[in-house]
This record gives sequence, structure tokens and C-alpha cells, in this order.
Amino acid sequence: MLRQLLPRAGRAWRAPAARQLLPCSLSARQPVRCYSIQPEAASRAKPLDVDPSRLSITKTSATKELKDPATLIFGREFTDHMLTIEWTQQDGWLAPQITPYQNLSLDPAACVLHYAFECFEGMKAYKDKNGNVRLFRPDKNMERMNKSAARIALPTFSPTAVIDLISQFAKLESRFIPDQRGYSLYLRPTMIGTQKTLGVGPPGSALLYVIASPVGPYYPTGFKAVSLEATDYAVRAWPGGVGDKKLGANYAPCVVPQTEAASRGFQQNLWLFGEQEYVTEVGTMNMFVAMKNKETGQKELLTAPLDGTILPGVTRDSILALAREKLAPEGWMISERKYTMKEVAEAADEGRLMEAFGAGTAAIVSPVRKISWKGQLVDCGLSEHEESGEIALRMKGWIEGRQYGDEEHEWSHVC
Amino acid sequence: MLRQLLPRAGRAWRAPAARQLLPCSLSARQPVRCYSIQPEAASRAKPLDVDPSRLSITKTSATKELKDPATLIFGREFTDHMLTIEWTQQDGWLAPQITPYQNLSLDPAACVLHYAFECFEGMKAYKDKNGNVRLFRPDKNMERMNKSAARIALPTFSPTAVIDLISQFAKLESRFIPDQRGYSLYLRPTMIGTQKTLGVGPPGSALLYVIASPVGPYYPTGFKAVSLEATDYAVRAWPGGVGDKKLGANYAPCVVPQTEAASRGFQQNLWLFGEQEYVTEVGTMNMFVAMKNKETGQKELLTAPLDGTILPGVTRDSILALAREKLAPEGWMISERKYTMKEVAEAADEGRLMEAFGAGTAAIVSPVRKISWKGQLVDCGLSEHEESGEIALRMKGWIEGRQYGDEEHEWSHVC
Repeated sequence: MLRQLLPRAGRAWRAPAARQLLPCSLSARQPVRCYSIQPEAASRAKPLDVDPSRLSITKTSATKELKDPATLIFGREFTDHMLTIEWTQQDGWLAPQITPYQNLSLDPAACVLHYAFECFEGMKAYKDKNGNVRLFRPDKNMERMNKSAARIALPTFSPTAVIDLISQFAKLESRFIPDQRGYSLYLRPTMIGTQKTLGVGPPGSALLYVIASPVGPYYPTGFKAVSLEATDYAVRAWPGGVGDKKLGANYAPCVVPQTEAASRGFQQNLWLFGEQEYVTEVGTMNMFVAMKNKETGQKELLTAPLDGTILPGVTRDSILALAREKLAPEGWMISERKYTMKEVAEAADEGRLMEAFGAGTAAIVSPVRKISWKGQLVDCGLSEHEESGEIALRMKGWIEGRQYGDEEHEWSHVC
Repeated sequence: MLRQLLPRAGRAWRAPAARQLLPCSLSARQPVRCYSIQPEAASRAKPLDVDPSRLSITKTSATKELKDPATLIFGREFTDHMLTIEWTQQDGWLAPQITPYQNLSLDPAACVLHYAFECFEGMKAYKDKNGNVRLFRPDKNMERMNKSAARIALPTFSPTAVIDLISQFAKLESRFIPDQRGYSLYLRPTMIGTQKTLGVGPPGSALLYVIASPVGPYYPTGFKAVSLEATDYAVRAWPGGVGDKKLGANYAPCVVPQTEAASRGFQQNLWLFGEQEYVTEVGTMNMFVAMKNKETGQKELLTAPLDGTILPGVTRDSILALAREKLAPEGWMISERKYTMKEVAEAADEGRLMEAFGAGTAAIVSPVRKISWKGQLVDCGLSEHEESGEIALRMKGWIEGRQYGDEEHEWSHVC
């Protein structure tokens, strides 16, 4: 059990001082995208951090029937209970509670409903071959959630304390985790501002809660490659914006472009940025491309850098780490760098584009067949009967091996 | 009573077809900011629009005591009742209800809490000298709310039907409107996505509700000029984004920069955009500047154009209309154009900057004394003992005259 309470609850984010506002110089031709806001150490320590020893558990008297795993739809069915931790500016984090899953009663003036004081995480609990419940890199989720919260003036918390509570919650709900490969319990830590006020300011009260939804494999019958619409008429994120934080604010505005792409037969948007048409993200996933270098022929696995407009995905980070560990020795170059849609299209034209895939918690990897761009269909290297490239397939295997505890690894946290 | 039901309920916004995605050409030196998404005619008419004839009213049995108007804090106290209208994808808009003010019961997986499916309006009801309740340009608010809703895949509605319902609601709550000048009833129409799902997609159910909060004058003892911090390290809005819609998503990300500015003694952020440092908005208000032309000496009242990054404020529109009606004949040039912080600072240095003010529903106008920019304090033309320039003062008088019905005008809607 982790009990290393860090003295950092409270509101942690501060803008840089006036003299340090622009760490990067701007040029007229090349918009610089690295001046995103970074969280710093807590400026106002609160008296009470999240304290797992104060947890109270009220079990439901009406347990739900388990669904046939084959019928599960992502995020529709939830487990018996939920974890809640209230925060007030006066008292800090109150005693955590596990209660029966239930509706939240919110004042119609609650600030979450008006000004989007909300952030969340997506993570999964897995059952290993011995029946243990495991989380995958929960420290990364908690670190990101604290950054998201601080960016919108919501309180931060001790990551280890909340991991401890989530572990207890996941174990309590373990009967909802099917023990087949590919199945898991999707966990949704969420924080909302609850203060009743229409004044725009830092919320004086908040609620951190975690709900859980059993989910099946993203591709129940094996990979199914998707096709993307390169999107330039709507822009997901901007330098100085909040595209690198997991805020509700980043999601609703992307739904209509997604619906539009779908109406033209494309499953996801590929978000481009700027007149250079940099490739940023795909739908709600990070984007990876594998191609051969034009001059040297060296294989390169590349993804956009964390310049403030890219969500720092846990799967993205895991793929990069695995690539450096296992692909670099095979001669691959592993790159976090800006790249353009033109570069991808050229590589495709010249037969150098090996494969492309999205990366995220839901699917781990999501292979890409084609990208619609400026009236052409860019072929991403899969043959007609292939649904995944080799790298995506190997990555999925490596990551699942650690998620399900087949390989003992520090990324896997036994609850 | 307005009862002109327009057949446009449903989801109205569609991205332009692929060939029309970029109406403006892009140049390397001058980022073009006019390719914001525009709503179009409804693509999927729903069977039922909002129908005021189906309104049911349940009055409270516990009426609230009226507060001393002098003690009112913006958006903290609410009236006895609220107006609610539910929507489902299957049935369209259900029967409107006026009920006692009460908490909303929301599933913890409701999409508003995760993906910021939320938009709102700010408008006011005034009591005229005959005791009539009046709304100010409610058609503008409803038009904008439909655009906001459509942009995030929430349902649209007949503006006239909702104005009818808001009028009935405001009349029912008229005892909460103090009849002194400067007082009013702040109305907050809000729409949220209510579907219980963690899948990111168009909400299958929604709730439109209106709550009301009695408010006093923004400046109870006369104008008090504010000072601003020109902000470049955080960006409120960008081309292809949603800065021109009244979405919750635009608000939470601005609170920390606002807190930071306040910690340095500045009441609001002045949001700059791009390396050119265009002046866009001030806090949650539109920005106006009055200056003399460098060459001709002609007086110019200017504000940023509606290029997709600027909120189309009702007060902004009213000021522009009044300026064209009353100031242009006095020789003023009235401009909606891009202007830079450098331009403002130069005008100040050369004694050509006459005044600057924010414009919004809360304050009508909010005079600006100084702007902190690149280590200098730009003086906005007020002398030491002045709290407002002449134009701000005249605008406030003209607008209040129409709001309170002193001047009969089409902008004022008698409930």
C-alpha cells in the first residue's frame, strides 16, 4: 500500500512570472508551439490532503447482475459502487467514501455546468492469471490529473493516496473484471468544481470521483484498420491553450467535426495544425507513423513532440519507451518531432510509409489504412487483407504483456 | 407573445463541405482568423420543437425572503423557481416546466461532467417605470445560444418559443427585480448534455434550463476604472476554435491567468493574439478603444472584428449600433478591425488615445485606466480623478435608457 503523502494539495498551477512569459522566440514563418503552461510547485499548501486511512465504505444492498462480456458497450454499464472525495477551500480534502453508484445532486448554478471546471483520466484495471487486480502506470494518470486540475484552478492531491484508494475500489469491484484476455475494468477518475456561483473564479469546492465500467476488447475479432479525415477547418489545440491537459473543454468541440468525418466514411479526424499542416493527434488518440528515411533508408517511428498542444498519453509514453528498448537495437530511429501531412503523403507516394496507428488507453493501438487529405487518399502501407502493421501488432503484445502481468514490470501496479 | 415556431429544432451545425473548408487564404506573415465554423440550416429536423403552450407551472410552497438589494453578490442568490425543458433524440423537446428552484440529479457518467457539453447565455430582465418587466434584445441571446449549442452537437430550438417561456418566467419572478435604476434580474439560460455515457459522441439527451439571480449595479458608487494585464502566455481563442461561441469550455481555462493578473494588481486579462499581438477581448468582455487618427486626427471608436475568435457580444453589437447612430454624425469613424497592442501603446505615447473600455452584459461598460504590457504601463487617457471616459459614460446612458424602457425601442422586449 502506498502511503507517501506529499504536501502538495491545493492549487498548484502558477503562470510564469512576467519576465519569463515567453520561453520560446517566435518567428513569422514557423509558429513556435512550445510555450504551453507548465505546472509548478504548490503555492498554497492546504491543511488536509487526501487521506486513505479515513476511507469509509458503504456497500450496496442491490448488487448488479453481471452482463455477458460479449455485449459490453464502452462506458455504458457501471459497477456497484463509486469512490468520492469532496474538497472545500476551507478544509481541504474530506474523508474519502466508497458508496453505492448513485446520481450526483448538483445545484443548477454549480460552476462545472457553466464554465467547464472539469477534468478526467482514463485508466484500466486488469485481472492477471492469479486473479490479482492490476493497474497500468497509475502514477502517470495521477500526475497528469494534477496538472489538468491545477490548470483550471481545481485542487491537486497526493497521487499515491489516490492510487491507494483507486486500488481498494478496483479490488472491491473485481467481480466485474472478466478474466479473459482483452477484458478490463475501465476506471474514470473525474474532478468537477461544485461551487454554487455564476461568478467566474477559482471554485471554492470540488468533487473528485471515480466510476468504473467493465469493457471488452476494442477489436473483439482482431484489428480493424480505420480511415482518417485530415482536418484543417477545425483546430483541436493551440499554443498557449489547454490541448495538453485532459479537460472536458477539449472534447465537446471535437464531436461535430468527428460526426462530419464519419458522414464521409472516415472513422476519425486527423487533426492538422497551422499552414504547415503539422500532424498532431488522431481523434482522441496520439498518432504514430513508421517510415523509411528518404536518404538513408533507416526506419523511423515518429510521433509529435509534447509542445503544449499534444496530450501526453500514457500509451504514447509506453510505446516510445518500448520502442527505445526493443526497436532501437534493431536499427530503428525513435523520434518525437514535428512532421507534416505533406511528409507523410510523400513517404506514401514513394513507398517509404510502412504503417501508421493511433495510440490510447481504449484500443492501445489503432491501425490506420488511409488518410483523406486535399482530395487524395493517402495509403498508409497496409495491403488489402492486412488490418495492422507489424509495429502496431508487436506494441499491443508488449503492452498487454505488462498490463496483464505476464511480464513482471514496474509499470504494473498490483492492487 | 411570440409564437412563431421555426422548424429548426435538432442539431443544426454542419462543417462546410470538403471543398469549402478554407474560405480565407492563408499567408505566412499574417495569420488569417476568419475561418471559424458557421452554423447552417438544420440538417435533421426533429419532430417536436419547444412548445410554450405545453408549459406546466408548479409554484414553490416556500418562497424566499427578498435580500436587501445593497447586499447582492453577482450570481450567488437565486429566485424561487427555474425553467426546464428536456430534450431527447427520439422525442425532441419535451413539455417545458417551471418548478421550484432545485438541484439537478445527474448520473456521474453524464456527458456534461466529462466532455463539457455545455453552453449558456447571460441576459437581464429590467423593471420599467410602469412596473413592466422587460428583456433587452433577447433575440440576440437566443440566436447565439443556438449557434453555441449546434457547435457542440447539442440540440437547437425555436428562439421565439424560448423567449416566450423566459418572459413568462421573468414575470413570475418579478418581485425579485428591485425597481431602482441599475438593478435587474440576471437570467442564465444554460444547456447541458445529460446522456449517461463515457463514449465521446453527440449527446442523446439534453436539458435546457434557466435560473435567475437578482443583481445590483456593477458600480454601486459610480464607475471605477480597472487596470489590465496584457496576456500573451495563455491564449483564450484561436482560428478554427470555439472562441466565438458561449461554451463552458472557454471559461475555466481563463481563470488561472485571471488569478495571476490579480496577484500582480490587475483586475482583468487583456487577451492578445499572435506574434502581432492583436488586441482581442478583456476578461469576459469585448474591448473598445477610442483614439485619434495619426494622420487626420479623426476620432475612431474601434473594436476587434468577429473573425471567429471574438465573442459576438450583445453589448458590443449595441455599442456599435449606437455609435453609428449617434457618434458617426459627430464625425467619428466606427471601426470593426484588427488592431495591435503596439498601436494602442503608440496612440497613448502620442496623446491620441482618448479612452478604452470593456463591454458586456454585467457592467455594460467597464472603463480602463492602464494596461500592463511588456514592462510598461500604457495610460488609457483618464486623468487621475476620472473613473470613466466620455464615450463609455454616454454609451451606458444610452443603453440603460433602452433597457429600462425610458426610450421605447425595438431592442426592449416587454414580457
